[in-house]
Amino acid sequence: MIHFNIEKPNASIREEIQKKIDNLTKPKGSLGMLEEIALKIGIIEQTSEPVLNNPHNIVFASDHGIAVEGVSLSPQEVTYQMIANFLSGGAGINFLARQHRFKMKIVDAGVNYDFPPTPGLIDLKIRKGTRNFLHEAAITREEMEMALERGAGVVSDCFKDGCNIISFGEMGIANTSASALWMSCLTNIPLKECVGAGCGLDDTGILHKYKVLQKALDNYKGDYSTLEIISYFGGYEMLMAVGGMLRAAELKMIILVDGFIMTNCILAASKLYPNILEYSLFCHQGNESGHKLLLKHLNATPILNLNMRLGEGTGAVCAYPIVESAVRMINEMNTFNSINVTKYFN
Amino acid sequence: MIHFNIEKPNASIREEIQKKIDNLTKPKGSLGMLEEIALKIGIIEQTSEPVLNNPHNIVFASDHGIAVEGVSLSPQEVTYQMIANFLSGGAGINFLARQHRFKMKIVDAGVNYDFPPTPGLIDLKIRKGTRNFLHEAAITREEMEMALERGAGVVSDCFKDGCNIISFGEMGIANTSASALWMSCLTNIPLKECVGAGCGLDDTGILHKYKVLQKALDNYKGDYSTLEIISYFGGYEMLMAVGGMLRAAELKMIILVDGFIMTNCILAASKLYPNILEYSLFCHQGNESGHKLLLKHLNATPILNLNMRLGEGTGAVCAYPIVESAVRMINEMNTFNSINVTKYFN
Repeated sequence: MIHFNIEKPNASIREEIQKKIDNLTKPKGSLGMLEEIALKIGIIEQTSEPVLNNPHNIVFASDHGIAVEGVSLSPQEVTYQMIANFLSGGAGINFLARQHRFKMKIVDAGVNYDFPPTPGLIDLKIRKGTRNFLHEAAITREEMEMALERGAGVVSDCFKDGCNIISFGEMGIANTSASALWMSCLTNIPLKECVGAGCGLDDTGILHKYKVLQKALDNYKGDYSTLEIISYFGGYEMLMAVGGMLRAAELKMIILVDGFIMTNCILAASKLYPNILEYSLFCHQGNESGHKLLLKHLNATPILNLNMRLGEGTGAVCAYPIVESAVRMINEMNTFNSINVTKYFN
Repeated sequence: MIHFNIEKPNASIREEIQKKIDNLTKPKGSLGMLEEIALKIGIIEQTSEPVLNNPHNIVFASDHGIAVEGVSLSPQEVTYQMIANFLSGGAGINFLARQHRFKMKIVDAGVNYDFPPTPGLIDLKIRKGTRNFLHEAAITREEMEMALERGAGVVSDCFKDGCNIISFGEMGIANTSASALWMSCLTNIPLKECVGAGCGLDDTGILHKYKVLQKALDNYKGDYSTLEIISYFGGYEMLMAVGGMLRAAELKMIILVDGFIMTNCILAASKLYPNILEYSLFCHQGNESGHKLLLKHLNATPILNLNMRLGEGTGAVCAYPIVESAVRMINEMNTFNSINVTKYFN
C-alpha cells in the first residue's frame, strides 16, 4: 500500500509571522480572514515572506456504476461530453483558470467512454466506470491502490513544474451519491442529512436517491475503516483526488479545497493522515445540502459562500484571488516601523 | 441644490440575459451569485455581453470634530498620516488595488492638517475637520452642497477616463461614530445596535462612545430628513462619497459598496434617489457590529464575509475578482448550443 510522509509544519515560526502581521499599518485584526490565511501559508512555507507559484487545477473525471439506479438528473454521457468542453476552454472552470492563471490538467480516471486520440487529455483510466455499489464494491483493493498512486503522480508532475498551490476538481455523474456515503460513514452524520440535489434533483428525486443509497448502506457488509469505505462506495476520480491531496501535503504544497465532493476527499485523506489539514484551505461552502454540515464537522470556515454547486474546482479557483490578497498583504504593506503612522493598539 | 438624474435601468432585457445564463454549460443556477451579478451588470449595461472598464477606487479622507470626545481608539493624527501611507503604496487598499488593477484617487475632503505640496493628493478640502456634533451641526448646508458637488466631480473625471466600475473608500478617525448616527436616524434601528468597536475599542470604550452619541442625539433639535441628518452628523468624506455614488449612478456606472461607512453612504444616497440601488453591488459584510443589520435593512446579500473592518475601500476591491468572474462567465462559457453537451434540465 502506498505510504505518504506528511509532516506537521513546525509551528515555532508562528509568533514571528503573527508579529509581522500585527505590525502592518492597519488596526490589529482588521483584515480578518486575510490575516488568518497569511499566517497559515507562512507556517506551511516556514517564512514570513510566502509566495504562490504556478497554481494548477486538476480535474479528475470518472463514471459511477450507481448511475444506473437513477440517482442523478443528468445522463451519464455528460461526463465524457464535458471532457471536450474542458479541453475547448468553454466550461465553468476554464474562465476561472484563465482569470487567475491556473494551469489545467484534465484526467480521465475512469470515464465510461472510448475516447479517440484526444490531445490534452491525460489518460489514467482504470476502468470504464465503477461497479454498482448497490450490489458489490465499486472499486477493488487493487484498483484503489492504483488510483491513489496515479492521482499522486499527477501532483508530483505539477510540483516538478514549480507549483506550490494546487486545487482539485471533479467531473462524474452520480458522484454526489458516492460522496454522501463517504460522508455519512466517515462522520456518523445520518445519511439523510448527507444527501442533496446534486446537479438539480427535485424533492422526489432526492427521496429516490436517498432510498437507493440507504439500501446500498443496508446491503454493505464490510467494516467501517476509511480504506474499506472509500473503495466500496468511491469513484476513481475521488480516489485519485485523495491520492493527489496526500502527495500535495507530503510535498508541503498548499491545497485549495473545492466543494462537496472534494471536501469528502479531504475528509477521507485526513482520516488517513490528519496532518493534511495543516496544508488545506477550505475555499467555498457549496449549495449541496450536506456541504455546510461537513465543513462544520471539519471545523472549517470557508473563504467564499456564493451558493455555487458546479464542482470542477470552480469554488477553489474562484477563491484564489483572496488567497493571493493574503500573501500580498504580508509582503507588500508598510509596517508601523517603516512609515510614520501612530500605532494605536497593543 | 445639486440634482442627479438617476434612471431605473430598463428591465426588458432581463429575460434575454437570463436565457443566455441558463444556456451556459452547467446545471441551471449552479454558479450561484456569479449568475446574479452577471444578470445585474447586464441590466445596468443593457447587454448580454457586459464589460468592466478601467476600475477606480476613490478614498475620501476627512476629520471629525466629535473625535475630541474620545469616541475612537485612534488619535486624530492617524488620518493625515495615512494619506502618506496611501500615497507611498503601502496601505491595505494599495496591495488590493495593484492586484486588481484599480486606479486610486486619494482625496483630502477635510483633513485637519496643513499638507505641504503633496503630489498625488487631490485637494478638495472644505475645512480642517467638521464641527463637534455633540454641540452643533458638524457641517453647514453650504458645505454639504459643496461636498456633494466635489465628490460628484471626482467621479465625472473617472468616467471621462473610461471607467465604468467604481468603488469608494474612506479614511477618517471617528467616522464610525458619524455612521452610527446616520444609520440609526435613517433606519430607525436603535442607536445602541448601530454602535461598534470602530478600529478596536473594548467594551468600556464602546459604552463611552454610545453614551456620547446618545447625548448628541438627545441634543439634536433638527428634523429627520435625510439632508438634515447627513449634514448635522456627517463627515465631509462621507458626503463626498454620497455625491460620488449619485453621480456614478447617474452615469450608469457599477458601484462597488465597501464596509460600514460606505454602506451608510449608499443608504443615504438611496433615501434621496432609490434607483441608485439598481447600480450597486454590496461587496462585503464587515466586522463592525452594525454592518450586518444595515445590510439586512437594505435587503443586501454581500459578496464576501471575511471579517474585515479596515475601510479604505478594501472590502470592495477585494471582491472585484468575483465580479470579474461573473462577467467572464457570461462572455466566455460555451452554451449547450455551441458544444455537444446534453442539456439535462429545463
